[in-house]
Amino acid sequence: MTAPRGRFVTLEGGEGAGKSTQIGRLAERLAAAGLDVVTTREPGGTPGGEEIRRLLVTGEPGRWDAMTETLLHYAARREHVEKTVKPALARGAWVISDRFADSTMAYQGCAGSVGRDAVRALHRLVLGDFAPDLTVILDLPVELGLQRAKGRQAATASAAAAEDRYERMGSAFHETLRQAFHEIAAAEPQRCRLIDATGDADAVAVRIWDAVAGHFGAAVAGNGR
Amino acid sequence: MTAPRGRFVTLEGGEGAGKSTQIGRLAERLAAAGLDVVTTREPGGTPGGEEIRRLLVTGEPGRWDAMTETLLHYAARREHVEKTVKPALARGAWVISDRFADSTMAYQGCAGSVGRDAVRALHRLVLGDFAPDLTVILDLPVELGLQRAKGRQAATASAAAAEDRYERMGSAFHETLRQAFHEIAAAEPQRCRLIDATGDADAVAVRIWDAVAGHFGAAVAGNGR
Repeated sequence: MTAPRGRFVTLEGGEGAGKSTQIGRLAERLAAAGLDVVTTREPGGTPGGEEIRRLLVTGEPGRWDAMTETLLHYAARREHVEKTVKPALARGAWVISDRFADSTMAYQGCAGSVGRDAVRALHRLVLGDFAPDLTVILDLPVELGLQRAKGRQAATASAAAAEDRYERMGSAFHETLRQAFHEIAAAEPQRCRLIDATGDADAVAVRIWDAVAGHFGAAVAGNGR
Repeated sequence: MTAPRGRFVTLEGGEGAGKSTQIGRLAERLAAAGLDVVTTREPGGTPGGEEIRRLLVTGEPGRWDAMTETLLHYAARREHVEKTVKPALARGAWVISDRFADSTMAYQGCAGSVGRDAVRALHRLVLGDFAPDLTVILDLPVELGLQRAKGRQAATASAAAAEDRYERMGSAFHETLRQAFHEIAAAEPQRCRLIDATGDADAVAVRIWDAVAGHFGAAVAGNGR
């Protein structure tokens, strides 16, 4: 008997949208349905990828040239896909990633100066047509998201280096980012679900589960087939 | 009066070819001719690029997926070109770099598994048609180069992390590398000069100077025009 094919689910959205909380909820629910679940994140998800992450999420907002930043994200992503995501999918696991390629398209391709075409060309060169089975995009007004993110930073102020480089990029940047995620969702309606992330975590978790169950149907209802 | 146009000279070759010694000699001689000279290196040449360098030159030979490694080199290179090389050229300086894009073509494109076409496509995406004015390729039998490199490592064993990741890749890898540099020199004879790097440093320095003076003519003979 061969292993049932795994599925690759990504959560996307701006700062403070609640991605990590919701990934925990989703992973629990999928595990309860008898599925082998792997949660991971970008940039990161491998030892080398976490080293690259440190270069990206700490320090001054302008420390990297925009193209450099895009290349660093794809370096970490290549490592992540080859060493974590694909091996897990091959053994039949469901992989849930906190961010993936849509973040690079939104942050560097749309809100940054690199441009959509360059990000698309880089993706093809590095990953071919590899893409998530489902992408859940958490949508939230910018001010609310930045408030939530700020609260989180304050709560974890003892961390050695604050992972706040992107949060410090100003609200115009974050407005463009939100529009970019709307654009991505509209362009690929088969793969993407835009989810209202306002309200409490329980309410958002219900909306996400409805989207996941609607997308995968029988595969999440029982024993993972 | 506008500044005279700067020139971009790169030194390439396998491990132990004597690049850093020869860059010092060449820089002295160009400076003596009245030129503003900047020496730099890859991966590195900027604060961020040096952080990326640390990820690339230390650790186990197999720590990175080959495409990841290529992306990290181009991330460091983009930073280097935008923040160090182009600004120096714009003010009229001569920039001499210890390694540049030909190293990625040789190490990852030819000797590694990434392939020539992918490296070429990445270069175009990241740097367009930006290229050195002259590339000096130091050529040496593989065993001699690795012996020299090993002697250098022994002499600097007190360094926190040995920069020997590439040296540890085995002599078949280094033979392919040498052939790759020959191939690059043959493909672009206008830009590249293959220089015999056997013999003592003084003899090699004379060969390099002849190549530089032959390539640039009057520009290196006097006051830099």
